[in-house]
Amino acid sequence: MKNFEWMLLKITSFCMLILLTACATGQTTQDPLPSWTDGPAKQRIVGFVHSVTDSTGSDFVPANKRIATFDNDGTLWSEKPTYFQLLFILDRVKLMAADHPEWKTTQPFQAVLENDMATMKAAGEHSLIELAMATHAGMTTEEFEIIVNDWLATARHPTTGQAYNSMVYQPQLELMDYLRANDFKVFIVSGGGLEFMRPWTQDVYGIPPDQVVGSSIETRYELRDGKPVLVRVPELHFINDNVTKPVAINRFIGQRPILAFGNSDGDFEMLKWTTSGEGKRLGLIVHHTDAEREWAYDRESSEGRLVRGLDQADENGWLVIDMANDWKVIFP
Amino acid sequence: MKNFEWMLLKITSFCMLILLTACATGQTTQDPLPSWTDGPAKQRIVGFVHSVTDSTGSDFVPANKRIATFDNDGTLWSEKPTYFQLLFILDRVKLMAADHPEWKTTQPFQAVLENDMATMKAAGEHSLIELAMATHAGMTTEEFEIIVNDWLATARHPTTGQAYNSMVYQPQLELMDYLRANDFKVFIVSGGGLEFMRPWTQDVYGIPPDQVVGSSIETRYELRDGKPVLVRVPELHFINDNVTKPVAINRFIGQRPILAFGNSDGDFEMLKWTTSGEGKRLGLIVHHTDAEREWAYDRESSEGRLVRGLDQADENGWLVIDMANDWKVIFP
Repeated sequence: MKNFEWMLLKITSFCMLILLTACATGQTTQDPLPSWTDGPAKQRIVGFVHSVTDSTGSDFVPANKRIATFDNDGTLWSEKPTYFQLLFILDRVKLMAADHPEWKTTQPFQAVLENDMATMKAAGEHSLIELAMATHAGMTTEEFEIIVNDWLATARHPTTGQAYNSMVYQPQLELMDYLRANDFKVFIVSGGGLEFMRPWTQDVYGIPPDQVVGSSIETRYELRDGKPVLVRVPELHFINDNVTKPVAINRFIGQRPILAFGNSDGDFEMLKWTTSGEGKRLGLIVHHTDAEREWAYDRESSEGRLVRGLDQADENGWLVIDMANDWKVIFP
Repeated sequence: MKNFEWMLLKITSFCMLILLTACATGQTTQDPLPSWTDGPAKQRIVGFVHSVTDSTGSDFVPANKRIATFDNDGTLWSEKPTYFQLLFILDRVKLMAADHPEWKTTQPFQAVLENDMATMKAAGEHSLIELAMATHAGMTTEEFEIIVNDWLATARHPTTGQAYNSMVYQPQLELMDYLRANDFKVFIVSGGGLEFMRPWTQDVYGIPPDQVVGSSIETRYELRDGKPVLVRVPELHFINDNVTKPVAINRFIGQRPILAFGNSDGDFEMLKWTTSGEGKRLGLIVHHTDAEREWAYDRESSEGRLVRGLDQADENGWLVIDMANDWKVIFP
């Protein structure tokens, strides 16, 4: 009987270990937002998540309605000295110039090749679209994905020297993880190009391609040597900005978010649409206040211009995140 | 010591029970596709799922690339005597006629009100779009959702007397569950209207709104009494059919599916796009061969016309599902 008792004891110990491990895993009290300063902003975010996930409370929201939307430029990654996609365009023009000798004497290409920023800025939106079409169309979707990946792997930010997709905000990575751990479905809703973002959002943000909403150009189905391809056509399909963000949210997501996070007036209508819904909602704005660790800008900036958002945050109940004070860490 | 031994034995039994339960759950051998006839078609589907989920095999596909797309009309639910959304339009015209006395003498409305199918069919696509716009636009997105839900709750199919959203195919419900259990993300890619499908796809198919891709009209962001609304505008945005299905897949999903299921030539390019990708792929076609339990039609039908799909299924390696023989049950 000694042996039997010994075996029993061993089995019991093993089983208890399993049960204890299971309990310990469930009871973890680790801070889900370690890069957020302990203070009112963090408290309000955590309080919001608690109240919409507490199935006994009056603010409970079922998991399949927990939609969160994040802008990208200036909300998830930096946008200075200018939008990273614009820097991609300038790099592409220079790289493609060898095949386009006429660009040396044709605006707006000449200004890009001569780094003539004054002419470029004066040229306006029409010229910007012309540059975008010249660099974003004319290839298949798969070819364009390779071009974006190659650029991200090699290009470096002009002042930090970092890869562009490492200039993402650590507090936001934690927030998105925290939301997903609470069964939120997290989407990007950005003015940036759909196919400029999708190649890397899964790896960098944990956001799969089908949860990325953005601006887009037309594509056309074609057979090449009997194989189908999608060719990118130099024609705008949709610009995802200000009043069209709710339109795109409705078209791509089909549900009104309960949480939206932006940083510029281009996000105003997304925030308004989100927080005007019934039940508990949360609208958030990144206020770039940190010239030391990132950049400080708002009302006068050509990127991420923030006027209406600051003026009307209070009356709309939106939480303005003060980057310098609310974020302990900026970049990972 | 007697008591101690007894306690040990009890704890051990309890722990063993937990472990055994866990093992039993993991080793379930229940058929995931009970409404599919045991035969080559079912074998090929199960074989495909096994090979792309076997992490030791050469055909393995990581979970986040397991995208499956299903057409809706004729693939997930019936489409006879005509598309259910068209029956919705006809019902709406009759209901709205009280507010539109001019429709009594204006085509194509007059034909609808007089049940004059010959005139309606002769009037062509332009008239159909006119009817669609009159019934699908002019209200907010939230008002339209209520209209669709009300119709589904009360309207009955002219020959079966069933609610339209109960005329879905049981074998396909099982297949979608089976794919999801194997970490596939399942999407609808349909010619039907986005906002006509989304109110019910979660409940009926387990497909959330953001995984529904379809045709759409324009919407416009507006403030009404200070509250934002999205107003449905009588202007086509996108028709999701044949060559535009791969375009929409790319735009909404951003990845090429590894499995696509359709039933008509409107799905041809989606199947071609899907199965032309690298690695193991599966293209499937529902062939409506069952005049007893559903309907039998293919080459000559105005709904779900299937010519190229049948002629080129073999050379493309697509699996044609013979409804009469491959499905034991049609409706739940």
